[in-house]
Amino acid sequence: MTTYRLDLAYDGTGFSGWALQPGRRTVQGELEAALQQLFGERIGLTVAGRTDAGVHALAQVASFATFREPPDDLAYSLNAVTGPDVAIASATEVGDGFNARRDARSRRYRYRLEMGWPPSPFERGRALNWRHRFDRPAVEECAAALVGVHDFTAFTPTDSEHSQFERRVVAAEWSEESERILRFEIEADAFMRSMVRSIVGTLLEVASGRRSVEGFRELLRGAARSEAGDTAAARGLYLIAVDY
Amino acid sequence: MTTYRLDLAYDGTGFSGWALQPGRRTVQGELEAALQQLFGERIGLTVAGRTDAGVHALAQVASFATFREPPDDLAYSLNAVTGPDVAIASATEVGDGFNARRDARSRRYRYRLEMGWPPSPFERGRALNWRHRFDRPAVEECAAALVGVHDFTAFTPTDSEHSQFERRVVAAEWSEESERILRFEIEADAFMRSMVRSIVGTLLEVASGRRSVEGFRELLRGAARSEAGDTAAARGLYLIAVDY
Repeated sequence: MTTYRLDLAYDGTGFSGWALQPGRRTVQGELEAALQQLFGERIGLTVAGRTDAGVHALAQVASFATFREPPDDLAYSLNAVTGPDVAIASATEVGDGFNARRDARSRRYRYRLEMGWPPSPFERGRALNWRHRFDRPAVEECAAALVGVHDFTAFTPTDSEHSQFERRVVAAEWSEESERILRFEIEADAFMRSMVRSIVGTLLEVASGRRSVEGFRELLRGAARSEAGDTAAARGLYLIAVDY
Repeated sequence: MTTYRLDLAYDGTGFSGWALQPGRRTVQGELEAALQQLFGERIGLTVAGRTDAGVHALAQVASFATFREPPDDLAYSLNAVTGPDVAIASATEVGDGFNARRDARSRRYRYRLEMGWPPSPFERGRALNWRHRFDRPAVEECAAALVGVHDFTAFTPTDSEHSQFERRVVAAEWSEESERILRFEIEADAFMRSMVRSIVGTLLEVASGRRSVEGFRELLRGAARSEAGDTAAARGLYLIAVDY
């Protein structure tokens, strides 16, 4: 049996997220259909970071194993049979037992804010337009507070399947991509469902002055979900790196 | 009668170009319908650079005149009634007789090439993917040769409505936008229909070694259209500046 690792990017706009859903176009569904076509058998994919509908990936990692022979150029073949909103950068044989999800040591996400108005036609579906007050020093303080091990219960859906809410954030920072685009990036060992988006939604409350930095800090001590802010729109979010 | 100047950007993907066409969605059609809604009368727009289907604009300029009273915030109102693939950056009263087309002294276009493979999902409709040889010194020589007054007959459709084929190119240069994206920019007093795209198509022949720099230079001396290369895809082209 040979194990393969896929490194891929996708524009999440046209997908109902990563995970298979009957009757919906999903990244997993698109890729598994392509693998079935190329290998002639049903193949199940494991992924480093499950993304929700509308969330993008610049560097997603998936893995699968099969006894079947691969086509000559697997990445090329996969790109040929998947839509133009997915790009398989590479498809490589890896050591037995490699598992894209279990073996990942950290994931890094980026959230893109487009400052100013009107929204650029070229950022549709790719950033959240922000035309309110933006207290940069305050959100910088919050980013610094995020680093470390915290109880992220406040940033998880109440119907969460998780049983353990501590996560280790190794980096959290704001930076400028361009004059108009501001980036928030956060890296952790693992994330819970919609965790980055609820962190960003809460940071935006701090940015606009509706919540204090101290109020934000308190959330990191296991506060209830209802204490945190809204979940920021999916379109601003990108999975940008997975480390093994 | 008051004359207005509109500065706008659009993603050309969803439009059959700038100019009105019955039964098609065009930028002019979208804007004139919005103006009719806001002013209560039929208003005709004049534009600095008519763009073809799929061609984008970062900084297009249009003008119109009317006796009617404008809404309080004309740019805001226009954005509210046009699609998200058009953004009106400003709508300002200008001096009587201002004409976006006639008064423009120069137009600047950018063509974006995405080098490498597979094509990024985020560059769909926004760049031409190029995975062939790219002789940068050769295309730099061609760019230098473009500057000046030349007879651009070779870069105009044979069914052209133009009667005079000399144009003054004031700048033509290659630059890197990022590791993967190469830009060609060209500025001239005026351009003929699909002129930039046929210049780029011909430059790509030079880049891949199918045409010599000297062969390119000869085209600038009034050669026939059939002598030049193909018209490069519309999706890589952007109108990026108009000077008055």
